[in-house]
Amino acid sequence: MSSAAVSYARENQKRFLDELKDLLRIPSVSTAEEHKDDIRKAAEMVANDLKRIGFEHVETISTQGHPLVYADWLHASGKPTALCYAHYDVQPAEPLDEWKSPPFVDKDAYPLKGEEAQAASKNWTEPSERNNNIYARGAVDDKGQLWMQLKAFESLFKGGNGKLPINGRVLIEGEEEVGGESIEEFVKKNAASGKLKADFALVTDTELFAPDLPTLCVGLRGLLYTEIQAQGAKSDLHSGVYGGAAPNPLFALVEIISKLKDADGKILIPGFYDDVQKPTDDELKAWEHLPFNEEDYRKAEVGSSVLTGEPGYSVLYRTWARPTLEVHGIPGGFVAPGAKTVIPARASAKVSMRLVPKQDPDDILKKYTEFVKKVTPKGIQINIKVHSKGPACVVNTDNKFARASVEAMHEIFGKDTVYIRSGGSIPIVTQFEEDLKIPSIMMGMGLPDDNLHAPNEKFHIPNFYRGIESIIRFFQILGQ
Amino acid sequence: MSSAAVSYARENQKRFLDELKDLLRIPSVSTAEEHKDDIRKAAEMVANDLKRIGFEHVETISTQGHPLVYADWLHASGKPTALCYAHYDVQPAEPLDEWKSPPFVDKDAYPLKGEEAQAASKNWTEPSERNNNIYARGAVDDKGQLWMQLKAFESLFKGGNGKLPINGRVLIEGEEEVGGESIEEFVKKNAASGKLKADFALVTDTELFAPDLPTLCVGLRGLLYTEIQAQGAKSDLHSGVYGGAAPNPLFALVEIISKLKDADGKILIPGFYDDVQKPTDDELKAWEHLPFNEEDYRKAEVGSSVLTGEPGYSVLYRTWARPTLEVHGIPGGFVAPGAKTVIPARASAKVSMRLVPKQDPDDILKKYTEFVKKVTPKGIQINIKVHSKGPACVVNTDNKFARASVEAMHEIFGKDTVYIRSGGSIPIVTQFEEDLKIPSIMMGMGLPDDNLHAPNEKFHIPNFYRGIESIIRFFQILGQ
Repeated sequence: MSSAAVSYARENQKRFLDELKDLLRIPSVSTAEEHKDDIRKAAEMVANDLKRIGFEHVETISTQGHPLVYADWLHASGKPTALCYAHYDVQPAEPLDEWKSPPFVDKDAYPLKGEEAQAASKNWTEPSERNNNIYARGAVDDKGQLWMQLKAFESLFKGGNGKLPINGRVLIEGEEEVGGESIEEFVKKNAASGKLKADFALVTDTELFAPDLPTLCVGLRGLLYTEIQAQGAKSDLHSGVYGGAAPNPLFALVEIISKLKDADGKILIPGFYDDVQKPTDDELKAWEHLPFNEEDYRKAEVGSSVLTGEPGYSVLYRTWARPTLEVHGIPGGFVAPGAKTVIPARASAKVSMRLVPKQDPDDILKKYTEFVKKVTPKGIQINIKVHSKGPACVVNTDNKFARASVEAMHEIFGKDTVYIRSGGSIPIVTQFEEDLKIPSIMMGMGLPDDNLHAPNEKFHIPNFYRGIESIIRFFQILGQ
Repeated sequence: MSSAAVSYARENQKRFLDELKDLLRIPSVSTAEEHKDDIRKAAEMVANDLKRIGFEHVETISTQGHPLVYADWLHASGKPTALCYAHYDVQPAEPLDEWKSPPFVDKDAYPLKGEEAQAASKNWTEPSERNNNIYARGAVDDKGQLWMQLKAFESLFKGGNGKLPINGRVLIEGEEEVGGESIEEFVKKNAASGKLKADFALVTDTELFAPDLPTLCVGLRGLLYTEIQAQGAKSDLHSGVYGGAAPNPLFALVEIISKLKDADGKILIPGFYDDVQKPTDDELKAWEHLPFNEEDYRKAEVGSSVLTGEPGYSVLYRTWARPTLEVHGIPGGFVAPGAKTVIPARASAKVSMRLVPKQDPDDILKKYTEFVKKVTPKGIQINIKVHSKGPACVVNTDNKFARASVEAMHEIFGKDTVYIRSGGSIPIVTQFEEDLKIPSIMMGMGLPDDNLHAPNEKFHIPNFYRGIESIIRFFQILGQ
């Protein structure tokens, strides 16, 4: 705790935060074609900072999709090597009118294209920094946590006369929110070459189980995200004139999706649960001792009248270790205010499944596709587009890297670490284990109410600082 | 046929069409708040022309919604009085990118607000007048058919030295596509006063059963158009983190809607069919003799792989005389291209029902509301908004007005008239019968492939002219 690196980090907190705000100003929305330039800007900012703080071999690597950023510093002979992962891309900010402050920090920083965005900006009446939080799309997912890594490295370089206590590789992607295909390919290609040779990975894209409670995430759900595209008539038809004769692709999607899951949340695709692996009894028991109150969670986080999901499983079990199926949007037909009596020619539905350990995404996709085709009503042509696909994983904590991270967080937080899973998906963690044969330390500093993927996403600023210090101490302990 | 009015109409065809194009240039979309000024402009153009051609007491009547236009000329002592109805409002033009020519005639005439409209306009490569059709939103529904009335009256005034062969009242509305509340109220209020006293109504908002086949429409379905608004969590949530615990209003709507209708098209709302009135055996038999080929209809009009709907009923029966239920759009969640793993806080579904004679819209709304509430999943709050509501009707043709219209069309088309129903809804026809005690003559000149409510709506220009001449002769015969 008396380390020069930690002191440097504390002295430079304000500047670190200002730099993070600059990164947050770039609307690097990876799913939107119109933000391609912003994606590149964000990658460049990351690469430039890696260069500035002391990394070598800094590369912005072009891909079929968005660029990867790679850097390394490998002069700590005999010390372990970390592979540090984060992502600079963000989810779309929509619905814009539910934000209280600009989703990209400044009102002017956001390209207010179209009437909708300009109308929405009228609701942005609060400052982006309030109650010790920074509010922005990507604040916690994952730009804030990406910047923790860079600022920990900067502090270590500065406090160590240009040297790190361990060897470091950094690999940052820009497609995490859209399936991460490019990094998958890159890791696969470089697994044998030694370019990514490391002893462990540090992944900062998860959260603390509760404020002030140091947390390691040891399991993630996988994701299969599809879009069912349906076509009925050759063009839009008047529902008065053709209602009763023309197939309606919107109604067909309703029929299909209603058959995928029952009212209790049980997924009805044949064979869907065949390979589901249960958590160990020890893990299930540990979850029971976590500070979790279902009623508080319902009220404060979800805000619905009741919670839903499969009977017989706890909330943590359901969201961490049971597969789920959700529909995210049903584009097609008339969705503007008012009424239009149309039978649309085309419609589609964005349907995703969260997967748990041992479920194979390709096997699930096959079963899903077969079932969807089977229950497709007559007169409707369907096509299933896959937006992303990755398996679940559970990581091992019985290693010196996990122990060092726990020791570091104990120093910074003054508390014992809890082990949790996350219902979200970080496919790269599975790949690090399978292709690089290294465990991942998922040391995240988000909070459960940080509004990931939702309006008013935030990052608690003290957690940004504690994250930097925890990483500094983690690497220093490993380098001793 | 040698009438001066008919000659005048023939000499002025080109000007009549040019005037119609001017009316079509005004994007008078009644469901869209941003087109309020356009609605007013369209009403003014109609009122100005009524004045110009010789009508008296021309009024643009302000309402809670969009203005009504009224005019009369009542100096044909001892002759019958017509109440002529049409509407100047139109459906939205979306999806804009499926139009081959500008939906409002000229590319520049349309307010290209937003990127979407500007992008769509790149597809508008064809001229608006092609193959003897005029392509535009509202071309046939109903501006073209509205203008037939005005141009018939103009020709009669000109050919009759400023006099009409019968008495004429004109009542034009701007809310037909959004439920027609204002005209309903106006007719109700003026039913007793005598302001709308007439012997019959002429309604030009229907179609010919086949090209060159004079047609009277004698029945219309009613319409109940609702929006089910659903709320789950208090704000949008990450489907990884909350999937398995948070209610999803989109999935809830899918569950609800899937329970409203079965795969065969049978509506499952208890009591829904209680009051359904069957067509007479004579009417059913007449439909069998109409020139209708189901396979041609499927290919040319619908363009789907099969037709759908209740087994045991013919296509004409299903679309004209059986109630149906359709979903037109499901706004909410993420509907842009790409993927977003969101559980939306709110979503809604636009659901409408077409009603047949003897079904009471209020009774159906009550049964529908009760059933929707009953099948709403836990954790979801719903609200049902009614966009429009009107009963079906069947009109009597055993009167001199129907006979005169048949005689007029026989002169112009050289063929016998067929009697059909329409699956669409014109609530005012029921009201004319109930409140004013007058029969409606539904003499429409549209064609089955005119793309009502769809991209590339058109009006066959020869039918515009034949419509004008048929109305001229209809009124001349009645005035003999």
